[in-house]
Amino acid sequence: MATASAPGKVYLFGEHAVVYGEPAVPCAIERRARAEVTERDDDHVRIDTADLGLEGFVAEYGPESAPTVEAPDSLLEAGLAYIDAAVREARDAADAPDAGLNVSVESDIPLGAGLGSSAAVVVATVAAAAHELGLDLDSRDVAERAYRAERDVQEGEASRADTFASATGGAVRVEGDDCRSLEAPELPFVVGYDGGSGNTGELVAGVRRLREEYGFAADTVSAIGDLVRDGEHALAEGDVEELGRLMDFNHGLLEALGVSARSLDAMVWAARQAGAHGAKLTGAGGGGCIVALDPTEQTETALDLTAECEQVFRAELATDGVRLE
Amino acid sequence: MATASAPGKVYLFGEHAVVYGEPAVPCAIERRARAEVTERDDDHVRIDTADLGLEGFVAEYGPESAPTVEAPDSLLEAGLAYIDAAVREARDAADAPDAGLNVSVESDIPLGAGLGSSAAVVVATVAAAAHELGLDLDSRDVAERAYRAERDVQEGEASRADTFASATGGAVRVEGDDCRSLEAPELPFVVGYDGGSGNTGELVAGVRRLREEYGFAADTVSAIGDLVRDGEHALAEGDVEELGRLMDFNHGLLEALGVSARSLDAMVWAARQAGAHGAKLTGAGGGGCIVALDPTEQTETALDLTAECEQVFRAELATDGVRLE
Repeated sequence: MATASAPGKVYLFGEHAVVYGEPAVPCAIERRARAEVTERDDDHVRIDTADLGLEGFVAEYGPESAPTVEAPDSLLEAGLAYIDAAVREARDAADAPDAGLNVSVESDIPLGAGLGSSAAVVVATVAAAAHELGLDLDSRDVAERAYRAERDVQEGEASRADTFASATGGAVRVEGDDCRSLEAPELPFVVGYDGGSGNTGELVAGVRRLREEYGFAADTVSAIGDLVRDGEHALAEGDVEELGRLMDFNHGLLEALGVSARSLDAMVWAARQAGAHGAKLTGAGGGGCIVALDPTEQTETALDLTAECEQVFRAELATDGVRLE
Repeated sequence: MATASAPGKVYLFGEHAVVYGEPAVPCAIERRARAEVTERDDDHVRIDTADLGLEGFVAEYGPESAPTVEAPDSLLEAGLAYIDAAVREARDAADAPDAGLNVSVESDIPLGAGLGSSAAVVVATVAAAAHELGLDLDSRDVAERAYRAERDVQEGEASRADTFASATGGAVRVEGDDCRSLEAPELPFVVGYDGGSGNTGELVAGVRRLREEYGFAADTVSAIGDLVRDGEHALAEGDVEELGRLMDFNHGLLEALGVSARSLDAMVWAARQAGAHGAKLTGAGGGGCIVALDPTEQTETALDLTAECEQVFRAELATDGVRLE
C-alpha cells in the first residue's frame, strides 16, 4: 500500500490573465488531498472516495468497461474522471498499463471553489499509484503527469499552474508552459468560502468575449500581468503589506472582468474592514473562495460573522508539495 | 424675487480618470436644487437654507464681516461657502458688487453623495441672483460663473463637469476644459444611496498615489478613458444594454483604484441581480450613491430590500438644465 498527499492552492495573483500568457502566482496551502493505493491481483480499478468534501462515491471497472458512477452530480463524474486519468498516467509511467489498483481518495479541500482540489487529488493519486507500482517520481515528474491527466479530462484546456503548485509546494510562478518555484516569506493566508462554486468554463469564456470586444478589457488583462510582475518583487522582499495592496487591486480588475460575485465581494470587504493586508477572490470566481492575508485572528472572526461566508479557515503556505506518507 | 432650479448629476462613466485628462460623461438627473433670491435695500447678504438635505442654516453678513454659521458640521460650512461664492459671481456678472440679497436655497439632492449637490446649488444661485440683479445669463455663462465659484471654494481644484452638466442638462462630455452636450436616449436611472459620503480629497489623493506608484494603475486610469470613448458610441446609438455592460466594467476599474466601499458594492450587486442593465458607483466613491440603468421596477425593489441602501429613487435624465421658475 502506498499513500501520498498533495496540497491545494490559492492564487496570490494572476488567475484568468494567465490564460493569455501573463504570469500568475499560485501558492500551495496547507489543505491536502490524500490518495491511498494498493495493487490488486486482477486488472480492475476500484475507486473509493471516502470524503471529497461531497458525499463520496465508489466505482469499480475492468479494462473493457468505462468508469461510471451512479450519481447525478457532475462533481462526482468529474472527480471520477480525474482519478481515472491519474491512474492511467501512473500506470503509463510505471510501464504497467494493466495493473489493477484499489484507489482510496479523501480531501479536505472544498471542491470547485478555486482551491485546486482536482489538481491536488490528481497529484496525490499519480504519486501514490506510481509508488505502489514500484516507481518513485520526483515532484516535477508528478507535476507533468498530473498536468497531462488534467489536460485529458479538460479536453486539452488545462493550466500547468494548479498541478505544478500542488506537486512542488510553496509559491510558484507560471507563465505559459514555464513553471518555477519562488522564494516566499511566511504568508498568513485566511480563506473564506461561500459554499458555492462558479462555472469555470463560462467565466473563462466571459473574459474572452470582453477581451475580444473591448481594447480596454485587453488592457485590463495586461494590467493584471504587470501587477503580477510587481507582486513578484514584493514576494522576494517579503513585503506582506505590499502584497495585500496588490491583492486588493487585482480583485478590482477581476471584478471589472466580470468574474466576481456578491458573496465574494462581501467576504473581501469583511476581510479588509477587519484589517487584513488585502483580499481577493481566488480561482475562476463567480462564487467559491476568497483569500486574505492577515497574521491576526481578526479576518477569521469577521468572516465568521459574515452571512455570505459558509466556512473560514487559516491555511498557511504549504512548503511541502506532494509527499509519500 | 427670482427663482431658479438646477439638476444634480450622476456619472455615467469616467469619474476619477477625468482628473488626468481622460473624458467623462456626467448626466443631469431630475433631482433639483432651488434658489430664491430677493434684492435688499442694504448691502447685506442673508442666506437661508430651508432644506439642503441636512438641518439647514441661516447666516447674515455685511460687506465687512466674513460669512459664518454657528454649526460644527463641515457640510454646513461648505454649503455656506458655495452659496457665498455663487452670490459674488452673480454680483460680479451684474456689475453690482454691493447689491444686498436675501438668498433662500433648498435641494432634494443628497449632500456629498456623488450627485453634484453643491454644483446644483451654485448653478441655481448664480442664475437666480443674476436674474434678480437684472441680468439673464445663458446656460453656458451660468456654467462658467458656477465653475469659478466652485474653484474659489475648492482652492483651485474644481472640475467643470458638475457645473456644466447642471447648467446645461442632459448628457455631457467633459475632457479637460472642453465641455459639450451629447445626444442621449432616455436613460432609466435608478439611484441607491447608502446615507453616507466619502472624503473626496482623500479618495482623489489615493488614486493619485496608486497611479504614481504603479504602471498598471496608470493603465487602469487610461482603460477608463478608453471605456468612456466606447461609451460615447453606445450613447449615440441608444444602446442601453451596452451602456450597462460598460457601467459594470467601469465599476470594477474604480474598485481596483480603491474608491469603492462595501455598501456601494452591495448596492451594485443588488441592482445587477435584479436585472439592471448595469450598475456602478457615481462620483468620488468611498460611500454615497450608486447608479443603475433599469427601465423596470426590479432594481428599486431590490435596493429597497438591501440593508446597505438607505434611500432609493428613480431619476430620469434631466433634459433641462438650469431654469428660471
